[in-house]
Amino acid sequence: MTDFHPPSETQILDRVKLPSDLKSLSDRELNQLARELRAETISAVSVTGGHLGAGLGVVELTVALHAVFDTPRDKIIWDVGHQCYPHKILTGRRDRIRTLRMGGGLAGFTKRAESPYDPFGAGHSSTSISAALGFAMARELGGDPGDAVAVIGDGAMSAGMAYEALNNAGDLGKRLFVILNDNEMSIAPPVGAMSSYLTRLYTGGPFQELKSVAKGAVGLLPESMQEGARRAKEMLKGITVGGTLFEELGFSYIGPVDGHDLDQLLPLLRTVKARATGPVLIHTVTTKGKGYGPAETAADKGHATGKFDVVTGVQAKAKANAPSYTSIFAKALIDEASRDDRIVGITAAMPDGTGLKQFAERFPRRSFDVGIAEQHAVTFAAGLAAGGMKPFCAIYSTFLQRGYDQVVHDVAVQNLPVRFAIDRAGLVGQDGPTHAGAYDIAYLANLPGFVVMAAADEAELIHMVATAAAHDTGPIAFRFPRGEGVGVDLPERGEVLPIGKGRMIAEGRGVAILSFGTRLSEVMKAREALSARGIQPTVADARFAKPLDRDLILRLASEHEALITIEEGAVGGFGSHVAQLLADEGVFDHGLRFRSMVLPDRFVDHDAPFAMYDTSALNAPQIEAKVLEVMGVAQIEGARA
Amino acid sequence: MTDFHPPSETQILDRVKLPSDLKSLSDRELNQLARELRAETISAVSVTGGHLGAGLGVVELTVALHAVFDTPRDKIIWDVGHQCYPHKILTGRRDRIRTLRMGGGLAGFTKRAESPYDPFGAGHSSTSISAALGFAMARELGGDPGDAVAVIGDGAMSAGMAYEALNNAGDLGKRLFVILNDNEMSIAPPVGAMSSYLTRLYTGGPFQELKSVAKGAVGLLPESMQEGARRAKEMLKGITVGGTLFEELGFSYIGPVDGHDLDQLLPLLRTVKARATGPVLIHTVTTKGKGYGPAETAADKGHATGKFDVVTGVQAKAKANAPSYTSIFAKALIDEASRDDRIVGITAAMPDGTGLKQFAERFPRRSFDVGIAEQHAVTFAAGLAAGGMKPFCAIYSTFLQRGYDQVVHDVAVQNLPVRFAIDRAGLVGQDGPTHAGAYDIAYLANLPGFVVMAAADEAELIHMVATAAAHDTGPIAFRFPRGEGVGVDLPERGEVLPIGKGRMIAEGRGVAILSFGTRLSEVMKAREALSARGIQPTVADARFAKPLDRDLILRLASEHEALITIEEGAVGGFGSHVAQLLADEGVFDHGLRFRSMVLPDRFVDHDAPFAMYDTSALNAPQIEAKVLEVMGVAQIEGARA
Repeated sequence: MTDFHPPSETQILDRVKLPSDLKSLSDRELNQLARELRAETISAVSVTGGHLGAGLGVVELTVALHAVFDTPRDKIIWDVGHQCYPHKILTGRRDRIRTLRMGGGLAGFTKRAESPYDPFGAGHSSTSISAALGFAMARELGGDPGDAVAVIGDGAMSAGMAYEALNNAGDLGKRLFVILNDNEMSIAPPVGAMSSYLTRLYTGGPFQELKSVAKGAVGLLPESMQEGARRAKEMLKGITVGGTLFEELGFSYIGPVDGHDLDQLLPLLRTVKARATGPVLIHTVTTKGKGYGPAETAADKGHATGKFDVVTGVQAKAKANAPSYTSIFAKALIDEASRDDRIVGITAAMPDGTGLKQFAERFPRRSFDVGIAEQHAVTFAAGLAAGGMKPFCAIYSTFLQRGYDQVVHDVAVQNLPVRFAIDRAGLVGQDGPTHAGAYDIAYLANLPGFVVMAAADEAELIHMVATAAAHDTGPIAFRFPRGEGVGVDLPERGEVLPIGKGRMIAEGRGVAILSFGTRLSEVMKAREALSARGIQPTVADARFAKPLDRDLILRLASEHEALITIEEGAVGGFGSHVAQLLADEGVFDHGLRFRSMVLPDRFVDHDAPFAMYDTSALNAPQIEAKVLEVMGVAQIEGARA
Repeated sequence: MTDFHPPSETQILDRVKLPSDLKSLSDRELNQLARELRAETISAVSVTGGHLGAGLGVVELTVALHAVFDTPRDKIIWDVGHQCYPHKILTGRRDRIRTLRMGGGLAGFTKRAESPYDPFGAGHSSTSISAALGFAMARELGGDPGDAVAVIGDGAMSAGMAYEALNNAGDLGKRLFVILNDNEMSIAPPVGAMSSYLTRLYTGGPFQELKSVAKGAVGLLPESMQEGARRAKEMLKGITVGGTLFEELGFSYIGPVDGHDLDQLLPLLRTVKARATGPVLIHTVTTKGKGYGPAETAADKGHATGKFDVVTGVQAKAKANAPSYTSIFAKALIDEASRDDRIVGITAAMPDGTGLKQFAERFPRRSFDVGIAEQHAVTFAAGLAAGGMKPFCAIYSTFLQRGYDQVVHDVAVQNLPVRFAIDRAGLVGQDGPTHAGAYDIAYLANLPGFVVMAAADEAELIHMVATAAAHDTGPIAFRFPRGEGVGVDLPERGEVLPIGKGRMIAEGRGVAILSFGTRLSEVMKAREALSARGIQPTVADARFAKPLDRDLILRLASEHEALITIEEGAVGGFGSHVAQLLADEGVFDHGLRFRSMVLPDRFVDHDAPFAMYDTSALNAPQIEAKVLEVMGVAQIEGARA
């Protein structure tokens, strides 16, 4: 049971079709609107599931920003974007809010294609200040008019990108608003010195005693706050900083203010909007999951939730058929680490998502959560490897893009044995295209010396963890998808696989299918369907995109009329490496019906993963069709000959 | 004429074979050693050319670090590594120092494979703190023992990666040394608020009055400095920060100290080495090019130089046959921008290298140097594009790897018309494998909606600048190499090329060569050589890796027995996309002698670019051989049939 009582009606919210409707509301009505908006958000997410806690934390901020600024002329840029559900409700999307993250429905993040009120889409963190600065400088140069407002969480501030943007914005000195939404939570509690620093900024005093008032920031405050600010300044002189860290970087700093108190937020935003001439950072303190008991008390503050009962907060869990790949990875890594104390784990602010949380519970000293800081995570891992450790860097495929230069420059060029555990490989479902793990095969397999593996099922994943642990002569990566395994029997302990060797799954003739990753189960389904027509393709699991199993590939090519590769990645990856080998070996000279099934050349919208693979033509029926296509042509040819 | 007088002898330096020899020297002798080391560095670089200014700025620091710390047990990690020439002289490489950056000679950066005194290689900036933290934590966990010391310039501190590392190191709280080598210069004068902040930290007082003394850092000072520090603390109370920005992030901050004064450096390093228990940042102020007049007075402080006369400082310039691609790009961009005031230019701390300096001189308001901050640069450009501008983001291929996630997530997913001018595509010569532009074709061409071009010569580059300026419907990139053009006539003004259309260069028969980029001139040389044997390949310039010129490729495939693609990039790029198209179209079904010439699957060591392409088998003789190989096979086959 919770303390949440949904309001019986949403009479103010019902009058709001667009943010411009907020202009005619009194501050009292805006307060009521915030209550109704919170209730509507909870109600919507109870139906759809999704990111709940972050949105509830910014309900008042959302109302205040739309009430004070003139959207969409003014640009509000929500960092990550997962806190945008209240914003979507207020910006003409209330009628579709119960389609969030469903196929064909609203995206779970801001999205330019969805609404002019989403001036910049997101999904990954810490991009908002850079984007807002771009809008601000465009405005200065005669581009789109209007103010730019970035809303960024404290967790996102651990990313170097946010610092780079502050550094540049402070230097350029143009009017720009950054709202630091400090809830002491990103997904997990944030880590790092910056987080401690932010906490120090607001602990020890009531909000009314604004701590920072240096460098003319007093003039940016509403009259009602100015006297208190002067007093605070007086009081704090000599104790606190002459300038906060943000002021050192060129921003006027105001805060901390209570981000749930519209009576503070509204006058403050009105005043800074009227008076600011340079970059301003407003430090608001909020509570993730605010106003909904089950979220506020959850460990992750209701970060992401399934559908739930509004009154009890109980989530409707889908029945799992098999353990998730993530949990299998965690267990396998713990198992290896229990026998090898040189194994360490590194996560960039995703201890839950990557399974490193369990590892950290078992081996706290050997576990590192570096914050949202993939660049550092990779080179830190390289340093650990150079120092004699066996680092497992557990980063989602899509987020490893953030550390790509470090993978090339610090790991590959130096041939250091960093192990990359690449979760969320392939299409990921509700998080959509921003989170797709589509490019890692291509961007890793062309790096000299890299070993690149993909697990075909959860037992394979266990073997690949063991293989990575044993591989001490250079970098090695293994990728695996989001979600649950296929339910195969699990080995007691992982076996070290021979590097660069695939395995035969099923002998057949005519066509060979060489699978890299978990499409293998779809390939086997297709094979079964084809059997009914008397077609029995040979099926093999490549295991390695690099080094390729040359012998296996050339044998498959020579013993079959057709060879089809399949992978959960974009062109340029596994299939391309196979094609390069076949070309170099002259296999194409005399004809081979070669096809490479890869992700399509478009971003695949959010949907259930199965549906996303269907539209991507990588499920069993499309594999079957591809086999028939190459065989069909072969049969016609055979008939001709 | 300069004020530099080379010492007549190097009698102390001659006694130093390894850093352990420094332990027996008195401080007075170390001072003399520094003078001799400076002279030897200048003398060496006068012969080889290379990065001079940075090394001269750290001569005393190099001597002090090796005198106080126990290398190679203790790890000194030079950020970027281009200041490591004095370090190489002291660490057993003096006999080879006049081979710097030459084929088979010493690398221009630190390199693990070269010496145990190079515990972590570099080339790109801002990686040193992450790597040092890796070594420090490895030590804490029983890995390699010894201290970790990162030496990082102020310019490198604008990169988010350095901030991520500080944030993590401050949080972990383990013993670690960061030497901030502040010379107010990276390559160009550094930009951004952090740079102003560092300047504020040391302006206004003599070094003896150490500004920071908070939080027990007094205890880390030699006794001789402690009294002064207490006085400084007293004096500055209430004026300066209670903690510097670095202290807010968890470091003990000491500084600023004169980085050229061994009488300050030696006692300070000895004391911190003896007493530090957590992370310490020592802020040294140095002069880039110190002690060599021509470097100190140069605009870039002798950042990188050709061979020069030691006495006059006059550089021996190689005669240029044609203007450089970089200068052609700059001129073309200025030309476009003179007609379109929505064009803006963005560089990440490389105004000279990218040619954006000339653009900035002409259009100062439309030019942005964001610092060493490629992540921010890309998303800032995306924001500018969303705000209605036409941003040209000029970043070297190798450095764009730093902004890869931003290219995917902020530019490609949103289909924003950011223009990427990718200089230093392909192999780059003396900077070696860390700077190779090998991967951009692969990592860009598989992004939906991207247009990817490569210029075959400098006239093509001008057309591609015009094409990018005109392309307002999505992202577009064009790549071009380091160095001078081939000397073709230049058009008055760039033409807008039809998107996705290549061009025929020479009709022939039997074999078709489809070139992407500047290998075209080598292809034409090969064609000429082949003509003598009666072989006349068709030659085409693809211009686009994406979208591919489908009609051209299929026509070449159908009208020839063999098709060879060639590019200055790794597998997974242009050739792979062509192979995918040919496979999808069933062209391989009936046989096509297809070959894809790409960079080899190994990192290519520094050398003259021509030599690097030779060892990579991408020059005219190897193209000729490849043609003969496919034709030879064809002829035998023909004979059989």
